[in-house]
Formats: sequence, C-alpha cells, structure tokens
Amino acid sequence: MPTPFHTPQEVEDAFYDALDERNTELMMRVWDDTPDIACLLPMQPMVHGGEVRNLFKALLGGETRINIQVSHVHWVQIGDVAIHYVQERADPSGVRPPASGERGGGVPPLYATNIYRRRGEAGWSMILHQNSPPAPPAGMPPPR
Amino acid sequence: MPTPFHTPQEVEDAFYDALDERNTELMMRVWDDTPDIACLLPMQPMVHGGEVRNLFKALLGGETRINIQVSHVHWVQIGDVAIHYVQERADPSGVRPPASGERGGGVPPLYATNIYRRRGEAGWSMILHQNSPPAPPAGMPPPR
Repeated sequence: MPTPFHTPQEVEDAFYDALDERNTELMMRVWDDTPDIACLLPMQPMVHGGEVRNLFKALLGGETRINIQVSHVHWVQIGDVAIHYVQERADPSGVRPPASGERGGGVPPLYATNIYRRRGEAGWSMILHQNSPPAPPAGMPPPR
Repeated sequence: MPTPFHTPQEVEDAFYDALDERNTELMMRVWDDTPDIACLLPMQPMVHGGEVRNLFKALLGGETRINIQVSHVHWVQIGDVAIHYVQERADPSGVRPPASGERGGGVPPLYATNIYRRRGEAGWSMILHQNSPPAPPAGMPPPR
C-alpha cells in the first residue's frame, strides 16, 4: 500500500510533480478511485470517471514534460472537501525566462480549480482538476 | 429574509431560471456570500470572490436570454458539499429545433461543474460554476 496523502497540499504537490516527471504511477495515486472524479486539461475535452485515468496514462506516456508554476488564488476547506483555486503558468523547458516587465515567457497564465476529498484512513485524493482558458487579451470589448 | 434553498437541486434550478429570466435578484440569492465563490462562463475570463456578483449583474442587465437545457452526468455529495457534473445545451430562442439525427440546433453541448455548500439555517448556495469549452469536432487527432 502506498502512503496516503495527509493533506490536500500533499496531493496538489504530487499532481504537479507527476506532470513534470511524467510519473504515471504517482498520478494514479493522486486521483480518488471512485466514479466521482472529473478533469479538464487545456485543449482537451472534459472527461469524467474512469476516463480521467485513461487521459493521464495517454498524456504521461508521451514525451512532453509539463512543468507548471502554481500560485494560490483562494483556498476553501469544508469538512472532508478542500477547494483550491490556483493560477498556473506553464514553464516549458527551452523557453527563455521573461524579461523585466513581460508577463512571463509569452505564455498567458491559466486558472485551475482543484478539488480534494478525504476518505478516512485513505487520506486525501484529487476529485477534480478543471482548467480555464487563458484570459482574453487586454482591450477586448466586454461581452454583451 | 428570502427563503433558503433546501437542496442543491433547488439552487441549481434557481441558477438556470435566473439566467433564463434575466433575474438578477434571484441570481444574487443563488450565490454563497463569502469570498469562496468562483465562476467561469463561456467566452469570459474566470472570476473569483466578489467579481462573480459583478459578472452576473453585468450579464443579466443585458438583453440576452440564456435558456440552457441541463442533463446530469454525475452527482457527488460529501457532507455539506455537493458537486454536480452536468451537460449544458444552449437553446437560443429563434433557433429551429434539431431535426431527427442531428445533435441539436447546431450548438455543441458544454460541460459544467456546479458546486454547492450547505451552511446550517442558511441552506444551500452555489460556490462554483465552471464551464468547459465544447468538445473538439469528431475526427480531430488526439493530443501528443
């Protein structure tokens, strides 16, 4: 039995480490093992339940390292559920660091909603990872 | 004091009714009144906390009726939190009904994640509404 994750933050760190290291085994430990899970990655269709594991097996079996810098927007904990609103900035290897005054490497940041649940001795696991598209460029007219 | 919502489903119904009726007062009752809320609507940047109310005041102050047909994908309830994964299909007035065999009016469905929380006597309220983009057209190559 792998060691359970003791906090939502441990699960979150493992999620982004698994992406960066293309570590499928770690990624499988991150996710809750019920049909309650869902995931939306950028440029992917939204998937629910068992499709989530298939998505990550396909993604991490590839050659792309996905190194994401995460900053926290707001955290909520309600009993055995934790919601982390975060901002993600992709840091693809080979891209030069941003110059002073730039928003960062030319890759606009995304928001993500990460939700974790605690199940007794099994500890915390991820049940939702849902990305937003990047914000529209400054100067776009507001929607009507 | 307005009557509290007694179930997550009552909140969900009120959310989509408020969109359809452009009912700002009802929409304000739908949302939890803490900084814990977040919303992503199609073609909009993701917003958190108090920005959510401003988004809906601007949206519902316009002239667009937003009539959405909702079907359930999966529901989860964990203590005082309920997560509803749903599929949304916009039903803009004036669009002819889909002919037999069509996927429906030419508007591709979206997924949404709706999260509700219970706060004692205050009943249930919405803390997250996050849409997905539509699925890519069939036949697109899988991501690598």
